[in-house]
Amino acid sequence: MKCYICRREEAVVRIEGKNYCKDCFLKLYEKRVEKVIKKWKLIENGDRVMVALSGGKDSASMLYFLNKYKKAVDFELEAMFIHLWIPEYSDLALEKSKELTKMLGIKLHIVDIKKGTGKTLIEIARSNRRRAICSICGIVKRYYMNKHPRERGFNKIATGHNMDDILEFFIKNFIDRNFEWNDKLKPIVPSTHPKLLTKIRPLYECSNVENYYYAKFNLLPFIESKCPFSKISKWKNIVECFDTNIPGSKRQFTRTIEELNFSVKEPEYKQCKICGELTTSKNGICSFCKLIHEN
Amino acid sequence: MKCYICRREEAVVRIEGKNYCKDCFLKLYEKRVEKVIKKWKLIENGDRVMVALSGGKDSASMLYFLNKYKKAVDFELEAMFIHLWIPEYSDLALEKSKELTKMLGIKLHIVDIKKGTGKTLIEIARSNRRRAICSICGIVKRYYMNKHPRERGFNKIATGHNMDDILEFFIKNFIDRNFEWNDKLKPIVPSTHPKLLTKIRPLYECSNVENYYYAKFNLLPFIESKCPFSKISKWKNIVECFDTNIPGSKRQFTRTIEELNFSVKEPEYKQCKICGELTTSKNGICSFCKLIHEN
Repeated sequence: MKCYICRREEAVVRIEGKNYCKDCFLKLYEKRVEKVIKKWKLIENGDRVMVALSGGKDSASMLYFLNKYKKAVDFELEAMFIHLWIPEYSDLALEKSKELTKMLGIKLHIVDIKKGTGKTLIEIARSNRRRAICSICGIVKRYYMNKHPRERGFNKIATGHNMDDILEFFIKNFIDRNFEWNDKLKPIVPSTHPKLLTKIRPLYECSNVENYYYAKFNLLPFIESKCPFSKISKWKNIVECFDTNIPGSKRQFTRTIEELNFSVKEPEYKQCKICGELTTSKNGICSFCKLIHEN
Repeated sequence: MKCYICRREEAVVRIEGKNYCKDCFLKLYEKRVEKVIKKWKLIENGDRVMVALSGGKDSASMLYFLNKYKKAVDFELEAMFIHLWIPEYSDLALEKSKELTKMLGIKLHIVDIKKGTGKTLIEIARSNRRRAICSICGIVKRYYMNKHPRERGFNKIATGHNMDDILEFFIKNFIDRNFEWNDKLKPIVPSTHPKLLTKIRPLYECSNVENYYYAKFNLLPFIESKCPFSKISKWKNIVECFDTNIPGSKRQFTRTIEELNFSVKEPEYKQCKICGELTTSKNGICSFCKLIHEN
């Protein structure tokens, strides 16, 4: 099968019902990411961007692309890895993140939650049994992804959320009527408070599969195994069902979410009584400190 | 398998992962429809409601239920059937509608499009080749469903749109960003002009399968074959995927759509230069007259 674009090379990937050779796929992928970055002004001259690395394909692809993108725009780029002490998994993910940043010549910040909290993720989970460990992990990561780069003068945090993540999150929250959450599901969530970093999601329009191939074709080091706590998501099956039936509908759906406006008002932030980070909770203690100090 | 509700009778239907006996299913179904009618004030004392019958399970179930509902609320109820002259199908559908209304003692209005336009649906489609026949059928039906009952003093038109129809339409239009259309996808669309009837959809929260069983268990005459022009809808597969993965998510999704507000402004209506019915088209000719007179 020949490539759908160049009609010359052998196709090696199939995306939305079309076949592409390696080179055409890579160009298409990069054009797509660049378009999102420009359209939403994710990165501009003078920005200081911290990339949150997980060790996986998505954030690896993002860092690789952003490093190339420095040729076009003058911005600072560093990476951070949050060590959660998930047995075997965290060490391997850190190893891959080290290899990747070394390969690209990018500074890697390692944030060790044991140093910050005295506990591993599993230990935090043990003293917070009412919460699922994945939800705890989210709170911990969001906390450090905002605090660590801000304290070092960065103004933007880039995460590897992809199209499939966005769709899964959107559908779940839409059905549950969490419209305020979905309102933040954009390629950029601008800072609304000096203590809040601007969040950017350059891979907003790239799927799981595309990020996988982009990382593979560029020979990026990344961890292929899943986190031992990750579960099969039935919402992911629903998301997949869109493209199985109507190829391209996932991307079209994502672009709708991009443009959608739920006109939800900004919550009122307070500074956490314990750590000083922001919170919207009634008792003035942030979710992170609730996890760490209240149990 | 015993019924999930009474724990006594044998279960005969399975809905959202739960099994019900015939009697409990019928009660549950009627409670659900009644709840929607009351919540959205679909029918009140003094209303004159015309039910649009297609000959199928949905509108048959609706008419049967509304006829029972007359014991609770004092309103007038008649039915209309639009004869489209689809070979074999239309005659059979009319036959079933006659049987049903006779069985319930309800007056049936037969609107013959050949009398109104001089053409059958297929003939209209032949002179409008750019439009799919299902889209033409929709225009013709919506035209008569508004005009016929209004001219006879009815104030509401009830259609048998079910949960699966609503979801399919919503998802398709959401992805295509037709938010104005989705804004009208409610259990009630109140009249905003003297020439526009209020539309009501009592089966808003009932699925295809539930309407089928309700019609079957009540021994209602309805046509089981599909219209020869109906196609397998890939959007329907996507809708089905929700409950296959997460039983009950279709209904939850529907309830979200019920509550959602896209805050789209009402279009400006003009009276059609040819027939005097309402239109929003720029040239002042309604879609129906475009179909009939412009080709």
